Amino acid sequence: MSNVLKEVLAANQKYSEGFGNKSALALPPARRFAILTCMDARLDPAKYAGLAEGDAHVIRNAGGRASDDAIRSLVISYKLLGTREWFVIHHTDCGMLTFTDDALRAQIAVETGFKPPYALNAFDDLAADVRAGIARIKADPHLLHHDRVRGFIFDVATGRLNEVL
Amino acid sequence: MSNVLKEVLAANQKYSEGFGNKSALALPPARRFAILTCMDARLDPAKYAGLAEGDAHVIRNAGGRASDDAIRSLVISYKLLGTREWFVIHHTDCGMLTFTDDALRAQIAVETGFKPPYALNAFDDLAADVRAGIARIKADPHLLHHDRVRGFIFDVATGRLNEVL
Repeated sequence: MSNVLKEVLAANQKYSEGFGNKSALALPPARRFAILTCMDARLDPAKYAGLAEGDAHVIRNAGGRASDDAIRSLVISYKLLGTREWFVIHHTDCGMLTFTDDALRAQIAVETGFKPPYALNAFDDLAADVRAGIARIKADPHLLHHDRVRGFIFDVATGRLNEVL
Repeated sequence: MSNVLKEVLAANQKYSEGFGNKSALALPPARRFAILTCMDARLDPAKYAGLAEGDAHVIRNAGGRASDDAIRSLVISYKLLGTREWFVIHHTDCGMLTFTDDALRAQIAVETGFKPPYALNAFDDLAADVRAGIARIKADPHLLHHDRVRGFIFDVATGRLNEVL
């Protein structure tokens, strides 16, 4: 058993001991919204946006991109579980700004012998990619609350969310 | 401005005021692991697995599935940012167990006039889907630490992680 696994299980034991009435929470998000954000380790959406367990869906991937899988997730969030408002949240100092697809795919091929046959989806402009994510969500024919999509950049130096207009 | 947005911004203001030395955190996850889990509102991976800001990548989608986009994210997590250990974490009472693709796609079509032209990826067996996720990650030719992939089911009634073997 790895040290990481031991630590995770010990932390989980402690969490479950104080779990209390969280066992009564309902499946649908109580505050009826979802956040789409980056997987970055420095981001804790529950903390930066003030979420308690049960409040909101959180979707995360490399970059916080409105990928096909994020859209699938939002459609389920909306139609099955009743969310009505969506936030796209990127962050400063994002790893996705530090490479180009071609360069990282070539670096991967050095180790594995071939490049991954799919896009890694690096981007070079945070605000532009937030706007693209908002646009894709607003354009999705199955996400019908187009007036309730906002975008932000989380500043990893200050902890603040700054809106992208 | 919606009430949700007002509440998120107020919570963020408070968080940023206590941000302290978190501004010094590095981009690569300090504990070199990543969690792939469900977007479900009741799940707080930082709490259930004991993560502080800066510790680990967190990838989330509807179901916590090892989708193409999750694999893209893990490859970036591994190769660009140095994670070496991955956890696939589903949970009891998951929304993905409550529908079939055909039925939810038909329900969406009632509202929008047509079915989404993609799979929603419902599943009917939590442990089997965790195992499938582990298998896909272990089989990925670019994720080279195959001995360091584990799977769990988070119990929403108790807060406990139970390993799937």
